[in-house]
Amino acid sequence: MKLSGGVEWALHCCVVLTTAGVPVPSARLAALHDVSPSYLAKQMQALSRAGLVHSVQGKTGGYVLTERAEDITLLDVVQAVDGASPAFVCTEIRRRGPLGTPPEQCTRQCPIARAMGAADEAWRASLAAVTIADLVASVEGDSGPEALPRIGAWLNEGPGGRP
Amino acid sequence: MKLSGGVEWALHCCVVLTTAGVPVPSARLAALHDVSPSYLAKQMQALSRAGLVHSVQGKTGGYVLTERAEDITLLDVVQAVDGASPAFVCTEIRRRGPLGTPPEQCTRQCPIARAMGAADEAWRASLAAVTIADLVASVEGDSGPEALPRIGAWLNEGPGGRP
Repeated sequence: MKLSGGVEWALHCCVVLTTAGVPVPSARLAALHDVSPSYLAKQMQALSRAGLVHSVQGKTGGYVLTERAEDITLLDVVQAVDGASPAFVCTEIRRRGPLGTPPEQCTRQCPIARAMGAADEAWRASLAAVTIADLVASVEGDSGPEALPRIGAWLNEGPGGRP
Repeated sequence: MKLSGGVEWALHCCVVLTTAGVPVPSARLAALHDVSPSYLAKQMQALSRAGLVHSVQGKTGGYVLTERAEDITLLDVVQAVDGASPAFVCTEIRRRGPLGTPPEQCTRQCPIARAMGAADEAWRASLAAVTIADLVASVEGDSGPEALPRIGAWLNEGPGGRP
């Protein structure tokens, strides 16, 4: 079971966008993180489709967070990039074969699907309990209060907010 | 993020193996569930590599659970089939680019990796809290106390324990 690598990139982008004073083009975010501009652009489009960022058009355009960092959870970002489907898919094999459970007895979800679903819910609840603002606070705790403003200044640099 | 489809098959096999009185060949388990014998054989081999089942050789051979159903958790089965790697892989992009965090400041895991790791732990804890015996009890609750013995009798049928 593996999450899309884009989840890591999208989360980093959300964190640094909290500190940018102006819209930031996807290419600038890719340059900051030294990652593939085209793959990062895909992640930003996924965040945009989910309504977590919006794209400001024009010469000084770029991405801005749509909501406050306190209102964006890790689950929002993970689901935007990786989709919201549960990791476990029940194919109802209990109904198959010579001793398959008759459909009329399958009024509840299969016990295996229930247990796997509960684990999925625990994972989602953990992600929903952490916001981008919490990550910002953790970065400040780890790297000091200057780290993110320094990144913000770099993102804003140059004519029209960037070089 | 998706788990291998083999997880569902392996869990069903563990549940029905609790009710079999004799070793059960992989092909018999595939026939019970009406699924691909070759793909099911792969899942049984994965369970065997993880030590959850062992293979009895010979004419009346087949698979038996190695441990009591109370001692096999869903996490054991999921990890046997799908691997134990965490869903989120941190590639340390915080260290990259013009403002990358210097290695000496990266004494703790990246905050993003910590939060994603906590969610992974929550998922694993949920799976570790449920055993095959719990699933057996749920099946009995849903389908009555005769459902699994009926399957056990079918698995044991025929000469040498099967037809």
